[in-house]
Amino acid sequence: MVYLTRKAEFSASHYYHNPEFTAQENQRIFGKCNNPNGHGHNYTLEVTVKGPVDPDSGFVVDLKQLKETMNREVLDALDHRFLNKELPEFRSTIPTTENLAINIWKRLEPKLSLAKLHRIRLYETPDLFVDFYGEQ
Amino acid sequence: MVYLTRKAEFSASHYYHNPEFTAQENQRIFGKCNNPNGHGHNYTLEVTVKGPVDPDSGFVVDLKQLKETMNREVLDALDHRFLNKELPEFRSTIPTTENLAINIWKRLEPKLSLAKLHRIRLYETPDLFVDFYGEQ
Amino acid sequence: MVYLTRKAEFSASHYYHNPEFTAQENQRIFGKCNNPNGHGHNYTLEVTVKGPVDPDSGFVVDLKQLKETMNREVLDALDHRFLNKELPEFRSTIPTTENLAINIWKRLEPKLSLAKLHRIRLYETPDLFVDFYGEQ
Amino acid sequence: MVYLTRKAEFSASHYYHNPEFTAQENQRIFGKCNNPNGHGHNYTLEVTVKGPVDPDSGFVVDLKQLKETMNREVLDALDHRFLNKELPEFRSTIPTTENLAINIWKRLEPKLSLAKLHRIRLYETPDLFVDFYGEQ
Amino acid sequence: MVYLTRKAEFSASHYYHNPEFTAQENQRIFGKCNNPNGHGHNYTLEVTVKGPVDPDSGFVVDLKQLKETMNREVLDALDHRFLNKELPEFRSTIPTTENLAINIWKRLEPKLSLAKLHRIRLYETPDLFVDFYGEQ
Amino acid sequence: MVYLTRKAEFSASHYYHNPEFTAQENQRIFGKCNNPNGHGHNYTLEVTVKGPVDPDSGFVVDLKQLKETMNREVLDALDHRFLNKELPEFRSTIPTTENLAINIWKRLEPKLSLAKLHRIRLYETPDLFVDFYGEQ
Repeated sequence: MVYLTRKAEFSASHYYHNPEFTAQENQRIFGKCNNPNGHGHNYTLEVTVKGPVDPDSGFVVDLKQLKETMNREVLDALDHRFLNKELPEFRSTIPTTENLAINIWKRLEPKLSLAKLHRIRLYETPDLFVDFYGEQ
Repeated sequence: MVYLTRKAEFSASHYYHNPEFTAQENQRIFGKCNNPNGHGHNYTLEVTVKGPVDPDSGFVVDLKQLKETMNREVLDALDHRFLNKELPEFRSTIPTTENLAINIWKRLEPKLSLAKLHRIRLYETPDLFVDFYGEQ
Repeated sequence: MVYLTRKAEFSASHYYHNPEFTAQENQRIFGKCNNPNGHGHNYTLEVTVKGPVDPDSGFVVDLKQLKETMNREVLDALDHRFLNKELPEFRSTIPTTENLAINIWKRLEPKLSLAKLHRIRLYETPDLFVDFYGEQ
Repeated sequence: MVYLTRKAEFSASHYYHNPEFTAQENQRIFGKCNNPNGHGHNYTLEVTVKGPVDPDSGFVVDLKQLKETMNREVLDALDHRFLNKELPEFRSTIPTTENLAINIWKRLEPKLSLAKLHRIRLYETPDLFVDFYGEQ
Repeated sequence: MVYLTRKAEFSASHYYHNPEFTAQENQRIFGKCNNPNGHGHNYTLEVTVKGPVDPDSGFVVDLKQLKETMNREVLDALDHRFLNKELPEFRSTIPTTENLAINIWKRLEPKLSLAKLHRIRLYETPDLFVDFYGEQ
Repeated sequence: MVYLTRKAEFSASHYYHNPEFTAQENQRIFGKCNNPNGHGHNYTLEVTVKGPVDPDSGFVVDLKQLKETMNREVLDALDHRFLNKELPEFRSTIPTTENLAINIWKRLEPKLSLAKLHRIRLYETPDLFVDFYGEQ
């Protein structure tokens, strides 16, 4: 059993706001992130899959296929987007790093055929990241 | 003569659009960056000052003062902002990395009293950065 | 269940010495680290907490609160200190990276109210780090 | 129980080819990596060991001994080598990152006496790495 | 006048050997790099161009054009190659980092139309790099 | 003319204090760095030399010789030291990053025979570094 991780980057913008909070609550809880014009990040995504090593190819997963799946299912959808405005999932869910990592898991997990998705790690900045293992 | 560099980070969003270009030209020249909803980056800023070493303190510049100046003149103004909408300078100037570096030079240069500003380096992503030395 | 990690840095100095070892043993076991004048590092600390995502805020943990707790309980105590001389815990315990990580766990774990502490990762240099999960 | 990780780097070259595949299959599956002249990487290796902290030394493992073992068992054998040609194990096994990580585990695991080997992490590039925990 | 830098990576292998040196000299001067099977690196290339900022686009250089030129003139030629065997220039010239940086300058300089090439920086490893400014 | 840079790391401790300042002035100017017990850093040193490329070896400088000179003249003297106490030069000069870079220049410059020393870059932390080019 080997775990393989591939990194990718995308740039997006977002803001944090809960319409059921008062303006004061939104400001207290979300601070500068509450600015409705949005602000942005260079997100770094790490996708980890696991599986046995195929004895013929020496691979856990076909790397080109993994890259194409990540591009098609995640990067094409999120890169250079304002998440709150352009992704229906984030109309009612706040696009925090936590929720974005769960969202990426849901996008990728059903599309991986050979190896099994093990972990989504998402860096919002070099100093802040979240991990999601599919545990509900 | 010693050159001292301090790094800082800020997150902002922007988009690229020239109202004098046609929609097709904007799309061809700016590609994904033309999305009017904006997208964002974690910018990394390097400010380099130069000067002789003060024999009493061993410093080229008072580090706390440099940090405060960078915070007050640059980070407070740019961090968590949508540059096109919230900074008057970028109403008519496109906030490319090039123009943003020149803008930061203009903000900082008149506020540094002891050491002289030598270079603004601005990373838009880890793979793309610009340098400006104040040369017009 | 999501795991969130925040990084921070601090600078401290230390040396390695066991008074029950002979001078030769101290030198053989600790090498250059046995110099009683001390030497120092820029430590990088990663604090990982885990918990469910709050449906109202989208957060596992209030990020400002986590930052304040890390500053108050860890950074204020350790940053710019000579660990052997200025921290009572390290009068009789050698401040190796292992023991320092355990020390940081004990400082933080009782102070985190919402999310649960999962892991302390501490880099002494970019090429050497330890992980502690609270397992005794 | 503490986990300690030490990093090291080595440079090697390899190519991917399965003699039981046709030329077309080799090309389709391995792409540019199928070039028989080989190409190379700066591999980054992370070796993680685990164990209790020795109360006398404050160490999980003697760091000098760990470094010497890594140098002797891994780096001396792999650094500046063409893996397919110079390592007998890779005459019949393709030296993918997956297989190379397993190979390094087998080299190190029997040579570590005090602490127990926990994980081999091997980066082929900054954007691609594998983890092996000894699970068959 | 603004300087813009774009990074890219490629993997290649090489070895160092001068047929006019004796075997002993080759070994003494080139050490492990003299292994004729070759060894490899993940090279990191930084291409810096300079020019005035175009007032209409805000760009020093069309970023897509720069990327395409780098891909076509440099990466397609060098990536996944054994430099000594597959590049005619390195049949008689030793592919040291110094000579490879000069080679990349010669490939790119005549192909850049708008901005002027200012510097080639080439990392062989994270701890070793060379800069070439076209000075003969 | 090619510029070649080699990196190295060392760990040292220091504190900032001018005996001609009052206690209040020392505290105001040097803040936490005034703690007489010292604190430490993992310094990263970049040594840049310049020269023509030797047509026989393809090198600007013999890399092994450069590494040995850096080890002997700089790292052996500074690594794992308390700079104020153990280096005579820093009895009367404050070991700021600026003064330490100048000190390293003076150690290396007379010992380099083939290539010429061009720049000393010294990082005190990842966010603060100084450059010295030998300009008095």
